[in-house]
Amino acid sequence: MKPATAQKRIEGVLSPVITPFKRDLSPDAGRFVRHCRWLMKSGCAGLAVFGTNSEANSMSVEEKLELLDALVKGGVPASGLMPGTGHCALTDSVKMTREAVRMGCGGVLMLPPFYYKGVSDEGLFRNFSEVIERVGDERLRLYLYHIPPVSNVPITLDLIERLLTRYPGIVAGAKDSSGDWSNTKAMLDRFKDRAFDVFPGSEVFLLDGLRAGGKGCITATGNINPGAISEVFRNWRGPDADKLQAGITATRKIVQKVPMIPALKSITAHFANDPAWRTVRPPLTELTADQEKQVVTELKTAGFSMPGLA
Amino acid sequence: MKPATAQKRIEGVLSPVITPFKRDLSPDAGRFVRHCRWLMKSGCAGLAVFGTNSEANSMSVEEKLELLDALVKGGVPASGLMPGTGHCALTDSVKMTREAVRMGCGGVLMLPPFYYKGVSDEGLFRNFSEVIERVGDERLRLYLYHIPPVSNVPITLDLIERLLTRYPGIVAGAKDSSGDWSNTKAMLDRFKDRAFDVFPGSEVFLLDGLRAGGKGCITATGNINPGAISEVFRNWRGPDADKLQAGITATRKIVQKVPMIPALKSITAHFANDPAWRTVRPPLTELTADQEKQVVTELKTAGFSMPGLA
Repeated sequence: MKPATAQKRIEGVLSPVITPFKRDLSPDAGRFVRHCRWLMKSGCAGLAVFGTNSEANSMSVEEKLELLDALVKGGVPASGLMPGTGHCALTDSVKMTREAVRMGCGGVLMLPPFYYKGVSDEGLFRNFSEVIERVGDERLRLYLYHIPPVSNVPITLDLIERLLTRYPGIVAGAKDSSGDWSNTKAMLDRFKDRAFDVFPGSEVFLLDGLRAGGKGCITATGNINPGAISEVFRNWRGPDADKLQAGITATRKIVQKVPMIPALKSITAHFANDPAWRTVRPPLTELTADQEKQVVTELKTAGFSMPGLA
Repeated sequence: MKPATAQKRIEGVLSPVITPFKRDLSPDAGRFVRHCRWLMKSGCAGLAVFGTNSEANSMSVEEKLELLDALVKGGVPASGLMPGTGHCALTDSVKMTREAVRMGCGGVLMLPPFYYKGVSDEGLFRNFSEVIERVGDERLRLYLYHIPPVSNVPITLDLIERLLTRYPGIVAGAKDSSGDWSNTKAMLDRFKDRAFDVFPGSEVFLLDGLRAGGKGCITATGNINPGAISEVFRNWRGPDADKLQAGITATRKIVQKVPMIPALKSITAHFANDPAWRTVRPPLTELTADQEKQVVTELKTAGFSMPGLA
């Protein structure tokens, strides 16, 4: 392996960046880079591009690598990027992880292979191990992506234990999108002395997570509400922490009333006054006009805005 | 679209061909072509390469296209091939379907995009529609792949209705791997006058399917028992049909006692005296020695063999 270098790890609020598509459904690199710059300017510590909310699994490896390249060339620091690089196909995961490391990304967020269900921890261990060995670069910082409601393939604590023991320093943490605080808490407790950085997958658990040793959060609504969510991260030890947390939780709950990914795009389209943002790739569908009106109206009533966007 | 040509559709028993891997886990084209030739010689009407049992989703598009190319160059008639070409990423599905049609494949077997769960029929319709429109070739014969136990994304009868109405002749049929005969029967009944060819995903339903208007089956165990299963297809109107069916069902039930994909590989390795066949890609794991011994012993006791293999 290439030698390790001292690296500061990403901490804080990361946005799993929504991906803009043109009318022909091809990725829109220009809009993507502009939105990423706005997110970093608005308080995000990093960008988990190519996550679930990015419709990443609806894009080919080549399409994602082109966007990543545009982002780095567009001046977004690679050290703050944690691209999703886990695919069903071992060779796709290797290819994309290798490129991310080569570009200097601060980390990668890796789904397990998610087609085959009921697979063993041994099989998943072999998958992650093969990727790490083939990439063969000690600069790799691998964050495991636990999202059983979508992947249907969980990453168990025992699997983490095994990977962390075999690849300390490289296996760097996890995003827990189980939505189950007891699982996040168990993950935090079990690996608290192992340099394993846990990020809840929703800002609803941001303050609880930080108090229990978490490092921030990686959250869908980070796409639209990065300022207020980052405010909680910056002030979590302060007297207003619970009040700030209640505010971002309330915003989240409004957005969650409609399907999340098209909602993020509709909200961005509305507040940026840029209808192109509404486009999603199949199998997703955009919000109905009624759904968009509902969520935008509720957000405005609650005083929500996206400063500096349009 | 390119003009339609008169094409004879595939009918009979298709094997979702297991994929041999080398020790470095790369696909082994030589072994693959040899196994495909044996399957066609042994009674298969066609080969559903790159199906679930092929570990297709553990391979990149490029790896699959290289194998498909090797197969056609190796003399296996493209008209008997029904490669799996459905991926999570729209652009991957288009790329692979386009190539399959260009090579003259008799059809393609298409999974829905399977990462996002709970998606609407509208979103799935748009996915299949985009693929068909972008491929833009009337030679395309698209078979929908309904396998909810693995994909977790069902293909409903209403979705089939909509696709068939919009793309008659191109939407050619389905593989039903629900394992639920009542669904297969409903599919057969509803589309019986629409040139929609239904293949149950297990030979357990072969005879019932044929009697209800089905066109054959596409079955995992077609990899190891193609002769006997094809015998049922050839004699389904004959006096021995039920007896022949009972025989292949009994064989299936032996194999099903252990995990199916590694079992098919272990059985092939054993009867071909070729240990390399045991290799699987992560996240799958090979059978334990005990599991292999159990399934092979039971098969031998039942008089099973793989004539002409070794």
